[in-house]
Amino acid sequence: MATPFDPHAVQALNFDVFGTVVDWRTGIARAGRGMGRKHGIAADWEAFADAWRGQYQPQLEKVRSGSLGWTPLDTLHRLGLNAIAADFGLEGLSDAEREALVRAWHKLDPWPDVVAGLDRLHERYLLATLSNGSLPLLAHMAKRAGLPWDAILGPPVVKHYKPQPEAYRLSAELLELEPAACMLVAAHPSDLEAAQAVGFRTAYVHRPREYGAGRGAPWPRGDAFDLVCESFEELADRMAD
Amino acid sequence: MATPFDPHAVQALNFDVFGTVVDWRTGIARAGRGMGRKHGIAADWEAFADAWRGQYQPQLEKVRSGSLGWTPLDTLHRLGLNAIAADFGLEGLSDAEREALVRAWHKLDPWPDVVAGLDRLHERYLLATLSNGSLPLLAHMAKRAGLPWDAILGPPVVKHYKPQPEAYRLSAELLELEPAACMLVAAHPSDLEAAQAVGFRTAYVHRPREYGAGRGAPWPRGDAFDLVCESFEELADRMAD
Repeated sequence: MATPFDPHAVQALNFDVFGTVVDWRTGIARAGRGMGRKHGIAADWEAFADAWRGQYQPQLEKVRSGSLGWTPLDTLHRLGLNAIAADFGLEGLSDAEREALVRAWHKLDPWPDVVAGLDRLHERYLLATLSNGSLPLLAHMAKRAGLPWDAILGPPVVKHYKPQPEAYRLSAELLELEPAACMLVAAHPSDLEAAQAVGFRTAYVHRPREYGAGRGAPWPRGDAFDLVCESFEELADRMAD
Repeated sequence: MATPFDPHAVQALNFDVFGTVVDWRTGIARAGRGMGRKHGIAADWEAFADAWRGQYQPQLEKVRSGSLGWTPLDTLHRLGLNAIAADFGLEGLSDAEREALVRAWHKLDPWPDVVAGLDRLHERYLLATLSNGSLPLLAHMAKRAGLPWDAILGPPVVKHYKPQPEAYRLSAELLELEPAACMLVAAHPSDLEAAQAVGFRTAYVHRPREYGAGRGAPWPRGDAFDLVCESFEELADRMAD
Protein backbone atom coordinates (compact mmCIF):
# COMPACT_ATOMS: atom_id res chain seq x y z
CA MET A 1 0.00 0.00 0.00
CA ALA A 2 1.14 3.52 -0.67
CA THR A 3 0.41 4.69 2.89
CA PRO A 4 0.27 2.54 6.04
CA PHE A 5 -3.20 1.67 7.21
CA ASP A 6 -4.56 3.27 10.38
CA PRO A 7 -8.11 2.32 11.44
CA HIS A 8 -8.40 5.63 13.31
CA ALA A 9 -8.34 7.52 10.01
CA VAL A 10 -11.47 5.70 8.86
CA GLN A 11 -14.82 7.21 9.84
CA ALA A 12 -17.29 5.31 7.69
CA LEU A 13 -17.48 1.72 6.50
CA ASN A 14 -19.32 1.16 3.23
CA PHE A 15 -20.52 -2.32 2.42
CA ASP A 16 -21.03 -4.31 -0.69
CA VAL A 17 -24.09 -6.44 0.08
CA PHE A 18 -24.77 -9.34 -2.34
CA GLY A 19 -22.25 -12.04 -1.49
CA THR A 20 -20.43 -9.94 1.11
CA VAL A 21 -23.25 -9.40 3.64
CA VAL A 22 -25.91 -11.84 2.44
CA ASP A 23 -25.96 -15.30 0.89
CA TRP A 24 -27.95 -14.62 -2.27
CA ARG A 25 -27.48 -18.12 -3.73
CA THR A 26 -29.15 -20.02 -0.88
CA GLY A 27 -31.99 -17.47 -0.65
CA ILE A 28 -32.75 -17.40 -4.35
CA ALA A 29 -32.49 -21.19 -4.71
CA ARG A 30 -34.97 -21.50 -1.82
CA ALA A 31 -37.39 -19.08 -3.49
CA GLY A 32 -37.10 -20.93 -6.81
CA ARG A 33 -37.60 -24.30 -5.13
CA GLY A 34 -40.76 -23.02 -3.42
CA MET A 35 -42.17 -21.79 -6.72
CA GLY A 36 -41.23 -25.10 -8.38
CA ARG A 37 -42.98 -27.09 -5.68
CA LYS A 38 -46.14 -25.03 -6.15
CA HIS A 39 -46.20 -25.78 -9.89
CA GLY A 40 -44.73 -29.30 -9.83
CA ILE A 41 -41.62 -28.14 -11.71
CA ALA A 42 -38.37 -30.06 -11.10
CA ALA A 43 -35.19 -28.10 -11.75
CA ASP A 44 -31.74 -27.53 -10.29
CA TRP A 45 -32.61 -24.47 -8.18
CA GLU A 46 -29.01 -23.69 -7.29
CA ALA A 47 -28.36 -23.53 -11.04
CA PHE A 48 -31.43 -21.26 -11.29
CA ALA A 49 -29.89 -18.91 -8.70
CA ASP A 50 -26.59 -18.94 -10.58
CA ALA A 51 -28.28 -18.29 -13.93
CA TRP A 52 -30.31 -15.39 -12.54
CA ARG A 53 -27.23 -13.91 -10.90
CA GLY A 54 -25.47 -14.46 -14.24
CA GLN A 55 -27.87 -11.91 -15.72
CA TYR A 56 -26.74 -9.30 -13.19
CA GLN A 57 -23.70 -7.78 -14.90
CA PRO A 58 -25.22 -7.83 -18.42
CA GLN A 59 -28.36 -6.06 -17.14
CA LEU A 60 -26.32 -3.50 -15.14
CA GLU A 61 -24.16 -2.91 -18.18
CA LYS A 62 -27.19 -1.64 -20.12
CA VAL A 63 -27.47 1.18 -17.58
CA ARG A 64 -23.74 1.79 -17.17
CA SER A 65 -23.32 2.01 -20.94
CA GLY A 66 -26.22 4.44 -21.24
CA SER A 67 -28.27 2.21 -23.53
CA LEU A 68 -30.89 2.12 -20.75
CA GLY A 69 -31.65 5.15 -18.52
CA TRP A 70 -31.43 4.87 -14.74
CA THR A 71 -33.32 1.71 -13.77
CA PRO A 72 -33.55 0.34 -10.21
CA LEU A 73 -32.22 -3.14 -9.57
CA ASP A 74 -35.66 -4.66 -8.94
CA THR A 75 -36.56 -3.89 -12.54
CA LEU A 76 -33.26 -5.29 -13.79
CA HIS A 77 -33.86 -8.42 -11.70
CA ARG A 78 -37.21 -8.77 -13.40
CA LEU A 79 -35.64 -8.45 -16.86
CA GLY A 80 -33.04 -11.05 -15.88
CA LEU A 81 -35.72 -13.43 -14.63
CA ASN A 82 -37.70 -13.04 -17.84
CA ALA A 83 -34.57 -13.93 -19.80
CA ILE A 84 -33.96 -17.23 -17.98
CA ALA A 85 -37.47 -18.32 -16.89
CA ALA A 86 -38.01 -20.75 -19.77
CA ASP A 87 -34.70 -22.53 -19.04
CA PHE A 88 -36.12 -23.60 -15.66
CA GLY A 89 -39.72 -24.34 -16.66
CA LEU A 90 -40.96 -21.03 -15.26
CA GLU A 91 -42.28 -19.50 -18.48
CA GLY A 92 -45.88 -19.93 -17.29
CA LEU A 93 -45.49 -17.82 -14.13
CA SER A 94 -47.93 -14.97 -13.65
CA ASP A 95 -46.83 -11.39 -13.20
CA ALA A 96 -47.52 -11.63 -9.46
CA GLU A 97 -45.42 -14.78 -9.18
CA ARG A 98 -42.53 -13.18 -11.05
CA GLU A 99 -42.83 -10.20 -8.72
CA ALA A 100 -42.73 -12.53 -5.70
CA LEU A 101 -39.47 -14.02 -6.98
CA VAL A 102 -38.02 -10.53 -7.53
CA ARG A 103 -38.96 -9.74 -3.92
CA ALA A 104 -36.97 -12.78 -2.75
CA TRP A 105 -33.90 -10.57 -3.28
CA HIS A 106 -35.27 -8.35 -0.47
CA LYS A 107 -35.34 -11.34 1.90
CA LEU A 108 -31.85 -12.78 1.76
CA ASP A 109 -30.19 -13.99 4.93
CA PRO A 110 -26.86 -12.64 6.15
CA TRP A 111 -23.84 -14.90 6.60
CA PRO A 112 -23.67 -16.10 10.23
CA ASP A 113 -20.87 -13.71 11.30
CA VAL A 114 -22.46 -10.56 9.87
CA VAL A 115 -24.83 -9.18 12.51
CA ALA A 116 -22.43 -9.73 15.42
CA GLY A 117 -19.61 -8.06 13.50
CA LEU A 118 -21.73 -5.12 12.32
CA ASP A 119 -23.09 -4.48 15.81
CA ARG A 120 -19.53 -4.14 17.11
CA LEU A 121 -18.41 -1.95 14.20
CA HIS A 122 -21.51 0.22 14.63
CA GLU A 123 -20.32 1.34 18.06
CA ARG A 124 -17.45 3.19 16.47
CA TYR A 125 -18.08 3.79 12.77
CA LEU A 126 -20.81 5.05 10.50
CA LEU A 127 -22.04 2.06 8.52
CA ALA A 128 -23.58 2.51 5.09
CA THR A 129 -24.46 0.30 2.18
CA LEU A 130 -22.63 0.77 -1.10
CA SER A 131 -24.54 -1.84 -3.06
CA ASN A 132 -26.17 -1.92 -6.48
CA GLY A 133 -29.39 -3.03 -4.74
CA SER A 134 -32.43 -0.79 -4.93
CA LEU A 135 -33.24 1.38 -1.93
CA PRO A 136 -36.43 -0.55 -1.01
CA LEU A 137 -34.55 -3.84 -1.42
CA LEU A 138 -31.78 -2.71 0.93
CA ALA A 139 -34.21 -1.20 3.44
CA HIS A 140 -36.44 -4.27 3.56
CA MET A 141 -33.45 -6.59 3.82
CA ALA A 142 -31.91 -4.58 6.67
CA LYS A 143 -35.15 -4.53 8.60
CA ARG A 144 -35.73 -8.25 8.24
CA ALA A 145 -32.13 -9.26 9.00
CA GLY A 146 -31.34 -6.62 11.64
CA LEU A 147 -28.49 -4.94 9.73
CA PRO A 148 -27.65 -1.70 11.58
CA TRP A 149 -27.02 0.61 8.62
CA ASP A 150 -26.81 4.29 9.46
CA ALA A 151 -27.55 5.17 5.85
CA ILE A 152 -28.27 3.65 2.48
CA LEU A 153 -25.87 5.28 0.05
CA GLY A 154 -24.27 4.19 -3.20
CA PRO A 155 -25.95 3.41 -6.52
CA PRO A 156 -29.68 3.73 -5.72
CA VAL A 157 -29.05 7.19 -4.25
CA VAL A 158 -26.32 8.52 -6.55
CA LYS A 159 -27.66 6.78 -9.67
CA HIS A 160 -24.42 5.29 -10.89
CA TYR A 161 -23.89 1.54 -10.74
CA LYS A 162 -20.66 0.09 -9.41
CA PRO A 163 -17.92 -0.13 -10.46
CA GLN A 164 -18.38 3.35 -11.97
CA PRO A 165 -16.18 5.71 -9.93
CA GLU A 166 -19.12 8.06 -9.20
CA ALA A 167 -20.79 5.30 -7.16
CA TYR A 168 -17.97 5.49 -4.60
CA ARG A 169 -16.99 9.15 -4.94
CA LEU A 170 -20.50 10.55 -4.55
CA SER A 171 -21.15 8.29 -1.56
CA ALA A 172 -18.15 9.75 0.27
CA GLU A 173 -19.39 13.21 -0.69
CA LEU A 174 -22.82 12.50 0.85
CA LEU A 175 -21.06 11.47 4.06
CA GLU A 176 -19.08 14.76 3.83
CA LEU A 177 -15.89 12.74 4.10
CA GLU A 178 -12.73 12.49 2.07
CA PRO A 179 -12.54 9.12 0.28
CA ALA A 180 -9.55 8.23 2.50
CA ALA A 181 -11.86 8.36 5.54
CA CYS A 182 -14.14 5.78 3.89
CA MET A 183 -13.52 2.06 3.64
CA LEU A 184 -15.25 -0.33 1.27
CA VAL A 185 -15.87 -3.81 2.65
CA ALA A 186 -16.42 -6.40 -0.08
CA ALA A 187 -15.80 -10.00 -1.04
CA HIS A 188 -14.96 -9.05 -4.64
CA PRO A 189 -11.54 -7.75 -5.68
CA SER A 190 -12.90 -5.87 -8.72
CA ASP A 191 -15.23 -3.83 -6.49
CA LEU A 192 -12.43 -3.09 -4.02
CA GLU A 193 -10.07 -2.07 -6.83
CA ALA A 194 -12.62 0.41 -8.17
CA ALA A 195 -13.03 1.89 -4.66
CA GLN A 196 -9.27 2.04 -4.25
CA ALA A 197 -8.98 3.94 -7.51
CA VAL A 198 -11.00 6.84 -6.06
CA GLY A 199 -9.05 6.79 -2.78
CA PHE A 200 -11.14 4.57 -0.49
CA ARG A 201 -9.58 2.28 2.06
CA THR A 202 -10.44 -1.36 1.40
CA ALA A 203 -11.23 -4.50 3.38
CA TYR A 204 -11.58 -7.83 1.61
CA VAL A 205 -13.75 -10.40 3.38
CA HIS A 206 -13.47 -13.96 2.11
CA ARG A 207 -16.77 -15.63 1.24
CA PRO A 208 -15.76 -19.07 -0.06
CA ARG A 209 -19.37 -20.31 -0.25
CA GLU A 210 -20.84 -17.42 -2.25
CA TYR A 211 -21.09 -19.62 -5.38
CA GLY A 212 -21.63 -22.85 -3.42
CA ALA A 213 -19.36 -25.34 -1.70
CA GLY A 214 -16.14 -26.08 -3.55
CA ARG A 215 -16.50 -23.08 -5.87
CA GLY A 216 -14.67 -20.54 -3.74
CA ALA A 217 -12.63 -17.71 -5.17
CA PRO A 218 -8.88 -17.67 -4.45
CA TRP A 219 -7.68 -15.41 -1.63
CA PRO A 220 -6.22 -12.14 -2.93
CA ARG A 221 -2.58 -11.24 -2.38
CA GLY A 222 -2.06 -10.23 1.27
CA ASP A 223 -1.00 -6.71 0.31
CA ALA A 224 -3.67 -6.07 -2.32
CA PHE A 225 -6.02 -4.38 0.16
CA ASP A 226 -5.69 -2.62 3.53
CA LEU A 227 -7.27 -5.58 5.30
CA VAL A 228 -7.90 -9.15 4.25
CA CYS A 229 -10.29 -10.90 6.66
CA GLU A 230 -12.18 -14.14 6.88
CA SER A 231 -15.27 -12.76 8.61
CA PHE A 232 -17.01 -9.60 9.86
CA GLU A 233 -15.96 -10.64 13.36
CA GLU A 234 -12.32 -10.53 12.30
CA LEU A 235 -12.97 -7.18 10.59
CA ALA A 236 -14.40 -5.82 13.87
CA ASP A 237 -11.32 -7.05 15.72
CA ARG A 238 -8.95 -5.45 13.23
CA MET A 239 -10.87 -2.15 13.12
CA ALA A 240 -10.83 -1.94 16.94
CA ASP A 241 -7.02 -1.81 17.06
CA MET B 1 -59.55 16.07 2.40
CA ALA B 2 -60.16 15.17 -1.21
CA THR B 3 -59.92 11.43 -0.56
CA PRO B 4 -60.60 9.59 2.71
CA PHE B 5 -57.51 8.60 4.62
CA ASP B 6 -56.58 4.93 4.83
CA PRO B 7 -53.40 4.04 6.78
CA HIS B 8 -53.09 0.83 4.74
CA ALA B 9 -52.35 2.89 1.62
CA VAL B 10 -49.27 4.39 3.30
CA GLN B 11 -46.01 2.46 2.98
CA ALA B 12 -43.41 4.95 4.18
CA LEU B 13 -43.42 7.63 6.85
CA ASN B 14 -41.10 10.57 6.26
CA PHE B 15 -40.16 12.74 9.21
CA ASP B 16 -39.32 16.33 9.70
CA VAL B 17 -36.69 16.28 12.47
CA PHE B 18 -35.92 19.67 14.10
CA GLY B 19 -38.83 20.45 16.39
CA THR B 20 -40.85 17.39 15.35
CA VAL B 21 -38.50 14.59 16.47
CA VAL B 22 -35.95 16.46 18.59
CA ASP B 23 -35.99 19.42 20.97
CA TRP B 24 -33.39 21.68 19.35
CA ARG B 25 -33.96 24.62 21.72
CA THR B 26 -33.06 22.79 24.94
CA GLY B 27 -30.05 21.09 23.32
CA ILE B 28 -28.63 24.24 21.76
CA ALA B 29 -29.21 26.31 24.90
CA ARG B 30 -27.36 23.60 26.88
CA ALA B 31 -24.41 23.72 24.47
CA GLY B 32 -24.30 27.52 24.60
CA ARG B 33 -24.49 27.50 28.40
CA GLY B 34 -21.58 25.05 28.57
CA MET B 35 -19.47 27.24 26.31
CA GLY B 36 -20.43 30.32 28.34
CA ARG B 37 -19.42 28.64 31.59
CA LYS B 38 -16.03 27.76 30.12
CA HIS B 39 -15.38 31.40 29.18
CA GLY B 40 -17.21 33.12 32.04
CA ILE B 41 -19.78 34.60 29.65
CA ALA B 42 -23.26 35.32 31.03
CA ALA B 43 -26.04 35.37 28.44
CA ASP B 44 -29.61 34.21 27.94
CA TRP B 45 -28.82 30.86 26.33
CA GLU B 46 -32.41 30.14 25.37
CA ALA B 47 -32.34 33.44 23.47
CA PHE B 48 -29.06 32.27 21.93
CA ALA B 49 -30.78 29.08 20.70
CA ASP B 50 -33.67 31.14 19.31
CA ALA B 51 -31.33 33.59 17.58
CA TRP B 52 -29.29 30.80 16.01
CA ARG B 53 -32.44 29.04 14.85
CA GLY B 54 -33.60 32.43 13.56
CA GLN B 55 -30.72 32.29 11.09
CA TYR B 56 -32.01 29.00 9.70
CA GLN B 57 -34.50 30.14 7.06
CA PRO B 58 -32.38 33.10 5.83
CA GLN B 59 -29.36 30.81 5.40
CA LEU B 60 -31.43 28.11 3.66
CA GLU B 61 -32.93 30.76 1.42
CA LYS B 62 -29.48 31.54 0.00
CA VAL B 63 -29.35 27.98 -1.32
CA ARG B 64 -33.01 27.76 -2.35
CA SER B 65 -32.71 31.03 -4.28
CA GLY B 66 -29.54 29.85 -6.02
CA SER B 67 -27.36 32.67 -4.69
CA LEU B 68 -25.32 29.96 -2.93
CA GLY B 69 -24.66 26.52 -4.48
CA TRP B 70 -25.60 23.34 -2.63
CA THR B 71 -24.27 23.72 0.91
CA PRO B 72 -24.84 21.20 3.71
CA LEU B 73 -26.64 22.37 6.82
CA ASP B 74 -23.55 22.12 9.05
CA THR B 75 -21.93 24.84 6.97
CA LEU B 76 -25.10 26.95 7.07
CA HIS B 77 -25.23 26.48 10.85
CA ARG B 78 -21.67 27.76 11.01
CA LEU B 79 -22.55 30.83 8.96
CA GLY B 80 -25.55 31.46 11.21
CA LEU B 81 -23.41 31.14 14.33
CA ASN B 82 -20.84 33.57 12.94
CA ALA B 83 -23.65 36.07 12.30
CA ILE B 84 -24.92 36.03 15.91
CA ALA B 85 -21.80 35.18 17.97
CA ALA B 86 -21.03 38.77 18.97
CA ASP B 87 -24.59 39.31 20.26
CA PHE B 88 -23.93 36.67 22.92
CA GLY B 89 -20.31 37.47 23.79
CA LEU B 90 -19.01 34.57 21.70
CA GLU B 91 -16.96 36.55 19.17
CA GLY B 92 -13.69 35.30 20.72
CA LEU B 93 -14.42 31.60 20.16
CA SER B 94 -11.81 29.59 18.31
CA ASP B 95 -12.59 27.69 15.14
CA ALA B 96 -12.62 24.42 17.10
CA GLU B 97 -15.07 25.87 19.63
CA ARG B 98 -17.38 27.10 16.88
CA GLU B 99 -17.19 23.65 15.32
CA ALA B 100 -18.08 22.07 18.68
CA LEU B 101 -21.21 24.26 18.86
CA VAL B 102 -22.14 23.31 15.28
CA ARG B 103 -21.80 19.67 16.31
CA ALA B 104 -24.28 20.23 19.15
CA TRP B 105 -26.95 20.05 16.41
CA HIS B 106 -25.88 16.39 15.92
CA LYS B 107 -26.57 15.65 19.61
CA LEU B 108 -30.11 16.83 20.19
CA ASP B 109 -32.45 14.78 22.34
CA PRO B 110 -35.79 13.46 21.07
CA TRP B 111 -39.06 14.44 22.72
CA PRO B 112 -40.03 11.81 25.33
CA ASP B 113 -42.69 10.08 23.17
CA VAL B 114 -40.53 9.72 20.06
CA VAL B 115 -38.55 6.50 20.42
CA ALA B 116 -41.47 4.43 21.75
CA GLY B 117 -43.70 5.69 18.93
CA LEU B 118 -41.08 5.15 16.20
CA ASP B 119 -40.32 1.62 17.39
CA ARG B 120 -44.00 0.71 17.00
CA LEU B 121 -44.32 2.42 13.61
CA HIS B 122 -41.14 0.70 12.45
CA GLU B 123 -42.79 -2.71 12.74
CA ARG B 124 -45.11 -1.85 9.89
CA TYR B 125 -43.75 1.08 7.85
CA LEU B 126 -40.52 2.18 6.26
CA LEU B 127 -39.30 5.18 8.26
CA ALA B 128 -37.11 7.83 6.64
CA THR B 129 -35.98 11.31 7.50
CA LEU B 130 -37.12 14.19 5.33
CA SER B 131 -35.18 16.89 7.12
CA ASN B 132 -32.98 19.76 6.00
CA GLY B 133 -30.27 18.38 8.32
CA SER B 134 -27.01 17.18 6.81
CA LEU B 135 -26.53 13.46 6.34
CA PRO B 136 -23.79 13.17 9.02
CA LEU B 137 -25.92 15.24 11.40
CA LEU B 138 -28.94 12.97 10.93
CA ALA B 139 -26.85 9.79 11.13
CA HIS B 140 -25.02 10.84 14.30
CA MET B 141 -28.26 12.00 15.91
CA ALA B 142 -30.06 8.75 15.10
CA LYS B 143 -27.23 6.66 16.48
CA ARG B 144 -27.02 8.61 19.72
CA ALA B 145 -30.78 8.80 20.28
CA GLY B 146 -31.75 5.36 18.96
CA LEU B 147 -34.00 6.59 16.13
CA PRO B 148 -34.78 3.56 13.92
CA TRP B 149 -34.62 5.19 10.48
CA ASP B 150 -34.57 2.79 7.56
CA ALA B 151 -33.09 5.49 5.36
CA ILE B 152 -31.95 9.08 5.36
CA LEU B 153 -33.67 10.74 2.43
CA GLY B 154 -34.76 14.28 1.70
CA PRO B 155 -32.61 17.38 1.23
CA PRO B 156 -29.07 16.12 1.97
CA VAL B 157 -29.58 13.31 -0.55
CA VAL B 158 -31.68 15.03 -3.22
CA LYS B 159 -29.98 18.43 -2.80
CA HIS B 160 -33.10 20.55 -2.60
CA TYR B 161 -34.05 22.19 0.68
CA LYS B 162 -37.61 22.05 1.96
CA PRO B 163 -40.11 23.39 1.21
CA GLN B 164 -39.02 23.07 -2.44
CA PRO B 165 -41.27 20.43 -4.04
CA GLU B 166 -38.27 18.37 -5.26
CA ALA B 167 -37.31 17.66 -1.63
CA TYR B 168 -40.51 15.63 -1.21
CA ARG B 169 -41.01 14.38 -4.75
CA LEU B 170 -37.50 13.00 -5.19
CA SER B 171 -37.65 11.31 -1.77
CA ALA B 172 -40.75 9.38 -2.81
CA GLU B 173 -38.99 8.51 -6.06
CA LEU B 174 -36.00 7.08 -4.13
CA LEU B 175 -38.41 4.91 -2.16
CA GLU B 176 -39.92 3.84 -5.52
CA LEU B 177 -43.31 4.88 -4.20
CA GLU B 178 -46.07 7.13 -5.42
CA PRO B 179 -46.30 10.28 -3.26
CA ALA B 180 -49.73 9.05 -2.04
CA ALA B 181 -48.00 6.05 -0.43
CA CYS B 182 -45.76 8.43 1.55
CA MET B 183 -46.73 10.44 4.61
CA LEU B 184 -44.88 13.44 6.00
CA VAL B 185 -44.91 13.74 9.78
CA ALA B 186 -44.16 17.28 10.98
CA ALA B 187 -44.99 19.84 13.62
CA HIS B 188 -45.06 22.67 11.06
CA PRO B 189 -48.06 23.38 8.83
CA SER B 190 -45.97 25.03 6.10
CA ASP B 191 -43.88 21.86 5.69
CA LEU B 192 -46.98 19.67 5.61
CA GLU B 193 -48.67 21.94 3.07
CA ALA B 194 -45.64 21.69 0.75
CA ALA B 195 -45.72 17.89 1.05
CA GLN B 196 -49.46 17.87 0.42
CA ALA B 197 -48.94 19.90 -2.73
CA VAL B 198 -46.91 17.07 -4.27
CA GLY B 199 -49.41 14.42 -3.17
CA PHE B 200 -48.03 13.18 0.17
CA ARG B 201 -50.27 12.16 3.01
CA THR B 202 -49.71 14.32 6.09
CA ALA B 203 -49.65 13.93 9.86
CA TYR B 204 -49.35 16.97 12.09
CA VAL B 205 -47.83 16.35 15.52
CA HIS B 206 -48.28 19.13 18.05
CA ARG B 207 -45.08 20.30 19.77
CA PRO B 208 -46.20 23.13 22.04
CA ARG B 209 -42.78 23.45 23.70
CA GLU B 210 -40.66 23.74 20.55
CA TYR B 211 -40.08 27.45 21.17
CA GLY B 212 -40.24 27.16 24.99
CA ALA B 213 -43.06 27.03 27.51
CA GLY B 214 -45.95 29.37 26.79
CA ARG B 215 -44.87 30.02 23.19
CA GLY B 216 -46.75 27.16 21.54
CA ALA B 217 -48.20 27.36 18.06
CA PRO B 218 -51.99 27.11 17.66
CA TRP B 219 -53.40 23.74 16.67
CA PRO B 220 -54.26 23.55 12.96
CA ARG B 221 -57.81 23.04 11.75
CA GLY B 222 -58.83 19.42 12.35
CA ASP B 223 -59.33 18.78 8.63
CA ALA B 224 -56.17 20.51 7.40
CA PHE B 225 -54.15 17.28 7.42
CA ASP B 226 -54.88 13.56 7.27
CA LEU B 227 -54.00 13.18 10.94
CA VAL B 228 -53.58 15.67 13.75
CA CYS B 229 -51.87 14.07 16.77
CA GLU B 230 -50.44 15.15 20.08
CA SER B 231 -47.56 12.64 20.16
CA PHE B 232 -45.75 9.91 18.23
CA GLU B 233 -47.53 7.41 20.48
CA GLU B 234 -50.88 8.70 19.25
CA LEU B 235 -49.55 8.61 15.68
CA ALA B 236 -48.59 4.94 16.17
CA ASP B 237 -52.10 4.20 17.50
CA ARG B 238 -53.77 5.93 14.58
CA MET B 239 -51.52 4.31 11.96
CA ALA B 240 -52.23 0.84 13.43
CA ASP B 241 -55.96 1.13 12.71
